[in-house]
Amino acid sequence: MPKHKIGIVGATGYTGSELVRLLTNHPKVQIDIITSESKAGQKFSEVNSHFNGLTDMVLEPLEKLQDYDLDLVFLALPHGVSMDFIKDWGYEDFRVIDLSGDFRLQSAEIYEQWYGKKHLDPDSIDDAVFGLSELFRNEIRNAQLVANPGCYPTSAILALAPLLKNNFINQSNIIVDSKSGVTGAGATASPKTHFPDVFGNFSAYGLRNHRHTPEIQTSLERYSGDKTEILFTPHLIPIDRGILTTTYSTPKRKLDKKFIEDTLFSFYEKEHFIRVVDDPPNVKNVRGSNYCDIYVTYDERTNKIVTVSTIDNLVKGAAGQAVQNMNIMFGYIERTGLDIIPLSP
Amino acid sequence: MPKHKIGIVGATGYTGSELVRLLTNHPKVQIDIITSESKAGQKFSEVNSHFNGLTDMVLEPLEKLQDYDLDLVFLALPHGVSMDFIKDWGYEDFRVIDLSGDFRLQSAEIYEQWYGKKHLDPDSIDDAVFGLSELFRNEIRNAQLVANPGCYPTSAILALAPLLKNNFINQSNIIVDSKSGVTGAGATASPKTHFPDVFGNFSAYGLRNHRHTPEIQTSLERYSGDKTEILFTPHLIPIDRGILTTTYSTPKRKLDKKFIEDTLFSFYEKEHFIRVVDDPPNVKNVRGSNYCDIYVTYDERTNKIVTVSTIDNLVKGAAGQAVQNMNIMFGYIERTGLDIIPLSP
Amino acid sequence: MPKHKIGIVGATGYTGSELVRLLTNHPKVQIDIITSESKAGQKFSEVNSHFNGLTDMVLEPLEKLQDYDLDLVFLALPHGVSMDFIKDWGYEDFRVIDLSGDFRLQSAEIYEQWYGKKHLDPDSIDDAVFGLSELFRNEIRNAQLVANPGCYPTSAILALAPLLKNNFINQSNIIVDSKSGVTGAGATASPKTHFPDVFGNFSAYGLRNHRHTPEIQTSLERYSGDKTEILFTPHLIPIDRGILTTTYSTPKRKLDKKFIEDTLFSFYEKEHFIRVVDDPPNVKNVRGSNYCDIYVTYDERTNKIVTVSTIDNLVKGAAGQAVQNMNIMFGYIERTGLDIIPLSP
Amino acid sequence: MPKHKIGIVGATGYTGSELVRLLTNHPKVQIDIITSESKAGQKFSEVNSHFNGLTDMVLEPLEKLQDYDLDLVFLALPHGVSMDFIKDWGYEDFRVIDLSGDFRLQSAEIYEQWYGKKHLDPDSIDDAVFGLSELFRNEIRNAQLVANPGCYPTSAILALAPLLKNNFINQSNIIVDSKSGVTGAGATASPKTHFPDVFGNFSAYGLRNHRHTPEIQTSLERYSGDKTEILFTPHLIPIDRGILTTTYSTPKRKLDKKFIEDTLFSFYEKEHFIRVVDDPPNVKNVRGSNYCDIYVTYDERTNKIVTVSTIDNLVKGAAGQAVQNMNIMFGYIERTGLDIIPLSP
Repeated sequence: MPKHKIGIVGATGYTGSELVRLLTNHPKVQIDIITSESKAGQKFSEVNSHFNGLTDMVLEPLEKLQDYDLDLVFLALPHGVSMDFIKDWGYEDFRVIDLSGDFRLQSAEIYEQWYGKKHLDPDSIDDAVFGLSELFRNEIRNAQLVANPGCYPTSAILALAPLLKNNFINQSNIIVDSKSGVTGAGATASPKTHFPDVFGNFSAYGLRNHRHTPEIQTSLERYSGDKTEILFTPHLIPIDRGILTTTYSTPKRKLDKKFIEDTLFSFYEKEHFIRVVDDPPNVKNVRGSNYCDIYVTYDERTNKIVTVSTIDNLVKGAAGQAVQNMNIMFGYIERTGLDIIPLSP
Repeated sequence: MPKHKIGIVGATGYTGSELVRLLTNHPKVQIDIITSESKAGQKFSEVNSHFNGLTDMVLEPLEKLQDYDLDLVFLALPHGVSMDFIKDWGYEDFRVIDLSGDFRLQSAEIYEQWYGKKHLDPDSIDDAVFGLSELFRNEIRNAQLVANPGCYPTSAILALAPLLKNNFINQSNIIVDSKSGVTGAGATASPKTHFPDVFGNFSAYGLRNHRHTPEIQTSLERYSGDKTEILFTPHLIPIDRGILTTTYSTPKRKLDKKFIEDTLFSFYEKEHFIRVVDDPPNVKNVRGSNYCDIYVTYDERTNKIVTVSTIDNLVKGAAGQAVQNMNIMFGYIERTGLDIIPLSP
Repeated sequence: MPKHKIGIVGATGYTGSELVRLLTNHPKVQIDIITSESKAGQKFSEVNSHFNGLTDMVLEPLEKLQDYDLDLVFLALPHGVSMDFIKDWGYEDFRVIDLSGDFRLQSAEIYEQWYGKKHLDPDSIDDAVFGLSELFRNEIRNAQLVANPGCYPTSAILALAPLLKNNFINQSNIIVDSKSGVTGAGATASPKTHFPDVFGNFSAYGLRNHRHTPEIQTSLERYSGDKTEILFTPHLIPIDRGILTTTYSTPKRKLDKKFIEDTLFSFYEKEHFIRVVDDPPNVKNVRGSNYCDIYVTYDERTNKIVTVSTIDNLVKGAAGQAVQNMNIMFGYIERTGLDIIPLSP
Repeated sequence: MPKHKIGIVGATGYTGSELVRLLTNHPKVQIDIITSESKAGQKFSEVNSHFNGLTDMVLEPLEKLQDYDLDLVFLALPHGVSMDFIKDWGYEDFRVIDLSGDFRLQSAEIYEQWYGKKHLDPDSIDDAVFGLSELFRNEIRNAQLVANPGCYPTSAILALAPLLKNNFINQSNIIVDSKSGVTGAGATASPKTHFPDVFGNFSAYGLRNHRHTPEIQTSLERYSGDKTEILFTPHLIPIDRGILTTTYSTPKRKLDKKFIEDTLFSFYEKEHFIRVVDDPPNVKNVRGSNYCDIYVTYDERTNKIVTVSTIDNLVKGAAGQAVQNMNIMFGYIERTGLDIIPLSP
């Protein structure tokens, strides 16, 4: 069987580089083109020097996309740029998995409210399927346009979905306290990512208005069918990769600790990439891999359910889940090319 | 005026070493003796090599305490060992500031419930004053035995006390999500603090049953007069020093964001070591110093008050607050010897 | 073709865990047994929690080795324990790759001088082949006992071998200044690896007497045929993985910068795992992979050749090179199972 | 006695901020003005948020310098900008300590060769005194213009000066292998200091042509009187503060290990800030302080002297030594305002 033909748009960010890492060893697809507007003509391995000697691919300008008869294109572009691409190129000639936030929310209104800019292509929002693989697998299978989830939302949604779906917890009063490594801020240097200021440090940011708030909320609503209210607070961990999310919610009725754990365990029993664990997880146990580790407990004293979940923000939180979605769309076994054992220590 | 005479019991841990750092430059006191059972006879600077050339003091066995006419003794001992000391030595001949958890809770019952061992000296619990300097200054002034607060509790209590005291928030349903550097785990090597396993990592631990839970809860109750219920979750940040605590609570009535901020600001206006800040704080801004930075905000959408507070766990969270308490007890200006500008970056 | 049958002796250290990571996805071999004396009966994934859900293997006591008809055994044991194993089990029934230092030096005398203890099996030293894959491939192919190189030596030898082999540099007066991440110190917690003391720190250690000195020296002598004198100084980098080695040597005759670079390039042209690079390398560009990046330059002003080389100490410096040697011994393509793209950032 | 009046030119870099930290608690001087061209009008504590609440000073434009009758001005300016200042303002009205590299080398020719740009004020180079406090104390005392040493040079020169002065080692064939924390690269964000790329990483850079090479070389020549040849290689440690320098040199004659150690010890016996230590030092033992720890050993086998020295690059390597020089210039006790115990852990 011939390999599927893949394009990657955007090669200078971390998600672009991780897509190449994952797809290079994928047995069923081939990368035909990697584009970069700012670095067209340079070798991919010049821009991402850990690929030195591993690939000869040269970055091409976007227009060259049309020279290849591509089956699928990954958009590893900044927020606001993806919708430009979609407006120009559409998603008929090839299927698209967009790793930006442009098509993740349910409407242009919500987008404009949280992103503070006008959405250029509201119709495509309706077409887009939210690519949380484990929860929206059926819709993803036939989608032409997949909006790959954000990193924080992936970690929060996977922990909360079983609780909401089983109607265990109040839909309001849900606290999501997340902590992320610095790759989540992207590959472009800025004062906020200057090494001496981040090293040995820890901070909260984006209180009350982080863009992942509506993404978590609306996706949980889509999945559970109920209006949901999330308070989300992100924090910056001085490490490169990894997200740990702690959630706090209130049971609707009297629940037994063991019953909640068992429910979560059953919910994800057949999922290769979700590991429901017996002890609070850590981010290094998933480093470099597509796994999400989830722990749940119930505190009788205060009547709260607490979950702790971890992912590698660049893999299950970005490029890895994108490849998982591609596997779903092409009908492959979902873990194809993603059998990566976490790098620890 | 002659200097006050100080003893430090326990010299091999981080709090002992930090006490020496702070007291060495204190203009009003002199360290007469530092004891260590395991390292008696060795030089303090051998055990704490950053003091090389800065002090010639030799560690002495505990029994030598009686050879000095001490005014005050700091106990930098592990939990469970301090109460042994108090039982043997009392706190009549010299005043005592205990940095362990042995006398922080309100009763032997609560102690035994959370620490899992019998308390050897319940009577002294009643005598002990909880040494959160800003909140219990009057009691501290005349105390013979001060129970210096834990690091997590200091960061949480200072953020929540003004909200509870002003009756802003529900006493139950309070979430305290804390993140601490690894010095909080002490100076003794263990598998949990093995560098390769902590580096690049982040984890939650002690869910539901961390010993600082009752300390936060009962201290807030003592201060505000109302029964309070706290859910506390600690996390391990892969850095050496610093705690950041995020709290979530529910207003009792409709409140204005600005009003809450102003209230907090007024509450701490005259406190030298509390800085109410306009932006979410970070731990490096207080590194090495006795400051506590506090930020508060109100999320109308979810009707939650969120605070973020930071301290250096070894200073305001331990040795620094102990020295602050000593200053109160001796009637010095509270910041004497503590005018340390944070070390950043 | 049936898979080769593999045993791993020692499962609780980092090299044991890395061997399992690499061999799990190796298409030609199967791990039949993993032993651990201290943790026999426990699941491998309990001891190495990042393998949670990825393997069901249970650790077995050493004696069970005889129940399997093994083709090859990896010894992931501490120094001094491997020679016990070899004395008892030999290397006739199965071939052995030993990852300890016990069989790396050329004689029992040198061993005893640098390791400070008696060697229990001097005869096997003569049989052992030093497993620096690129330099001793032919001997490795037919070896029954391979002494897998140390991490520091691998990084130093690969940089210096071409210079010595081409008779470019003086055999004496060679400085090897190495810097290693903390996994090089092993998986057992100790005061030297206590997180707060290593974090934000950097130190030199083992000056003049580190055991890798004779390993670098005698291996270069074996390879180049000339007596060689190395001064080796290791340093501890506060990271988990990675070694960077800087060497300084003096040309024997007038040499052109470009000529030296070209020679190094040609020397390793056909080697998949050696990347001769144009810019000074960094350790993250090889993280998790079996690559060794080497940079060389010549300073006319001081007449010195400087090399900078990097490896992941747990992969090319331990488990990865061991698997590479296994591939050589079994006649596989050398990179089989080792096509891992470095994890960066 | 009235306090000396101080100006600081340049407030947005790390050296400016460290100068304010050190001078704020200095009993003999007062900071009258801090200038910043880019941030004039802002509060100093806005730009350096760890000073929040500790100072009300507002940044002023450079021209305001003339409104104060200053005794001394610190220039915390980038290389190339200081000479502009000196050309315009001179150093007659106030004495100047320049923390840039502009006046450290012995001639405009050497400057232009290594800095790649024309020197604008060659005459002032002759007036400038190289501010390595311990070695050039007498010249500094009466200097109008002090060129404060670079961070790498301070660590290297203090280790090598006693060996050269006593004529122990060959003046050529000296290797200086240095490792620095990232604050050495300054406060301005750049791709080279982007957190995810530096974290968990280690690299060499500036081989053969780093500007500190001639600074080390010519200063040692000035001090010892002999032509000296240094090969200098810097490396980047993924920490915020600290330099560790390892040097390798060849004895001129047969020397005893103990004799070399004793010589170094005697050489610095009366120096408060130099600690000759018995074990290889680490950078955390000097963090935040003005100490330089030096270790020396002799390897008979290879006939090499090895030194290891450590400083905090922002203190003894910049602002701390600048204050030490100020104390010398004003005739204060040298350690005034600098009695800071290292912050460890």
